[in-house]
Amino acid sequence: MNRKFNIAIIGLGNIGSYLYTFLKQKRKILSKKARVDFNISHICDKKRKFKVSKNKWLKNYLDAPKIKEIDLIVELIGGAEGSAKKLVFSALKNKKHVVTANKALIAKYGNQLAKIAEKNKVNLEYEAAVCGGIPVIRSIKDGLITNQINKVYGIFNGTTNFILSSMDFDKLNFDFALKKAQKLGYAERNPKADLAGFDVADKLRILSALCFNSTINYKNIYIEGINNIDQKDVQYSNLLGFKIKLLGLTEKNNNTIVQKVFPALVKSNSSTAKINGVLNNVILEGKPIGSIEMIGEGAGPKATVSAISSDIISVMKDSIKLPFNTPIKEKNKYKFRDMLNESYEAYLRFDLQVKNIGLVKNIIRKLKKNRIHIQKYKKINFNSNKFFSLIIITKITKDPNLRGIIKNFKNKKIYKCVKFIRIEKV
Amino acid sequence: MNRKFNIAIIGLGNIGSYLYTFLKQKRKILSKKARVDFNISHICDKKRKFKVSKNKWLKNYLDAPKIKEIDLIVELIGGAEGSAKKLVFSALKNKKHVVTANKALIAKYGNQLAKIAEKNKVNLEYEAAVCGGIPVIRSIKDGLITNQINKVYGIFNGTTNFILSSMDFDKLNFDFALKKAQKLGYAERNPKADLAGFDVADKLRILSALCFNSTINYKNIYIEGINNIDQKDVQYSNLLGFKIKLLGLTEKNNNTIVQKVFPALVKSNSSTAKINGVLNNVILEGKPIGSIEMIGEGAGPKATVSAISSDIISVMKDSIKLPFNTPIKEKNKYKFRDMLNESYEAYLRFDLQVKNIGLVKNIIRKLKKNRIHIQKYKKINFNSNKFFSLIIITKITKDPNLRGIIKNFKNKKIYKCVKFIRIEKV
Repeated sequence: MNRKFNIAIIGLGNIGSYLYTFLKQKRKILSKKARVDFNISHICDKKRKFKVSKNKWLKNYLDAPKIKEIDLIVELIGGAEGSAKKLVFSALKNKKHVVTANKALIAKYGNQLAKIAEKNKVNLEYEAAVCGGIPVIRSIKDGLITNQINKVYGIFNGTTNFILSSMDFDKLNFDFALKKAQKLGYAERNPKADLAGFDVADKLRILSALCFNSTINYKNIYIEGINNIDQKDVQYSNLLGFKIKLLGLTEKNNNTIVQKVFPALVKSNSSTAKINGVLNNVILEGKPIGSIEMIGEGAGPKATVSAISSDIISVMKDSIKLPFNTPIKEKNKYKFRDMLNESYEAYLRFDLQVKNIGLVKNIIRKLKKNRIHIQKYKKINFNSNKFFSLIIITKITKDPNLRGIIKNFKNKKIYKCVKFIRIEKV
Repeated sequence: MNRKFNIAIIGLGNIGSYLYTFLKQKRKILSKKARVDFNISHICDKKRKFKVSKNKWLKNYLDAPKIKEIDLIVELIGGAEGSAKKLVFSALKNKKHVVTANKALIAKYGNQLAKIAEKNKVNLEYEAAVCGGIPVIRSIKDGLITNQINKVYGIFNGTTNFILSSMDFDKLNFDFALKKAQKLGYAERNPKADLAGFDVADKLRILSALCFNSTINYKNIYIEGINNIDQKDVQYSNLLGFKIKLLGLTEKNNNTIVQKVFPALVKSNSSTAKINGVLNNVILEGKPIGSIEMIGEGAGPKATVSAISSDIISVMKDSIKLPFNTPIKEKNKYKFRDMLNESYEAYLRFDLQVKNIGLVKNIIRKLKKNRIHIQKYKKINFNSNKFFSLIIITKITKDPNLRGIIKNFKNKKIYKCVKFIRIEKV
């Protein structure tokens, strides 16, 4: 063993603090595993959270890339822009290895960052950015490297899955479920990135690029969150043999790719339907492997630190790896399909007053006219039998037809609620 | 790229033939992924199965380690002794990298082989030896490397799981289920290694050594197969909320390790209970990760070749890795516990003629006397109500007590069937 390998941790929130303590406690055993002796040489945050010597505490995070003895910078600031972006670009340009948990940054600037890392022969590792503790990035890059992967999907966000599970098992409505998630620390005070599907979208962009050996495509993605799902939908889906899940799914067909994040009805007996609470799953389908599923905690300090620290060991013990396995300039080019031009079976819901039951005929006639055929349907009364929901599972239908008819019905005030949710066969 | 990296494939059965064709077809794309140009320079089998030039065909497999231009030998002969053993020892001694799917060999001689590989600075990779396509070995070695793993368990054998699933869902008896498995190619003509749990035992020994950072302990393991399970047990377990699975489980407590392979009742709602047919799962529990589950096909040419070929790429593109992550001579030493001295809840079954129903009191009295307490029980008639099974779920009981009482009852001819199956809380 030569001189110590020096690590700087920038950002000491939940994750950063846990990582710092973990690496300090496990330094000896991890040095042995890496066959390299390491040291946390510098840390930095807005507030000084740990008692450390002056020379270990960085006043300005942007000093880290310039300090000669630092070998690796762990970026735990977060966010695609601002400080995190400045730090990681500067670190790679200054030939420092980077380990990050920042999905937003990698999803947005991963192509550019990888190019710099490739040029400067340093590592850029980001296992913690996708599904926390599940070693899916490393598995795609190594254990499954010879496979031609055609489809990747799963539940990539613990917050929304916890909310949907609470709506299902505890019969909570959306707002209560969200509050419960916030109370337990599973949802942030501003939960928009999770609820709107943005968090899943970033993870999906990264997985899609890795699996299909393309550059990250930031724009060609459909994103729909779970704000539109209410407790009735969850319960009705149950009755019909489905669970509602916020899916991330990317698939390659005939050299075109679709990337989509949306709440979907999935069959209750599918493995994805059985992922509850804050768990995540990732299913990879490819040749020759067939199908592989990985299940684990997708967030939280423990799972995330498992991923970050394993990335750190990998940088120390192995040779330089390309951030996306192949050089960015050699990546495959694909066309992207718009999921809004595809076809789906769908769940439709129309809420009406019972006195307007005669409108059911109208609905069915209009659906037929728009080439929307019914697979099965159910009428369910609520509010002391003053109202009822008409629930329809359609046969496979063109998405524009579905959207068209729903928009059309929504304009009519007589309907208390009109909506549709797509069904995904997983 | 310098000269080509030369690979020899020894053994061209199902797996070897598939690998040969796969590597030939995908040579260009895989060379690109590895950043190393490779070539299948030699192949060998008892019969000449492929049309290849004379200089590519090895007459004697033991020539491979001596041929200078061969860099890597893929051993697909199988078996812990004989040809496979000779080949792999000779290959490593002659400084050839080795990739193998041979669980029996690694389980028995892994320690010795790893020492030679370490000394000669070559790779010995064996991802395909454990759970086929599931990249569990690589995940333990890399993606989860910083974790302190305390428990590993799952269903590691597709043959027995297929048989148990068929007994459950298709209501087949053991012999029919085995025949069906053989017909579909899921069981070998001589299925002993699978049925008796030996195949699972080898995989468990390897996982145990890797996860607990110890040498492979071949002897201290309990092994019980599924021959004793009949269709009634499967159905009765269902009624009581359990599934019967052939489990492999290894666990570390207070610096002692237990290794055990046995048919167990597991709760129907556990994830392991839901692994059906030829699927495998592996669950790893540790710190900081919590729990990770991986599910995939555990056998067959496709899954196995995914693992073997990914190992080959790993050898080509990465630096030399230690076969078991840490040098064999630095491994932790543990004491081993005997599972037969532990305590379990258990399922007991007594089959009697209905006219002897009075014996139930006797049974219960005797159990009590032996400190076996009852959690719940059920009486089920069969054979046109001439017979009945008394099914008991015990409270937690010392294993010797369970075995003692069962042996005692078995000696009495009045009982048509007396048996117990342990319950494992997974």
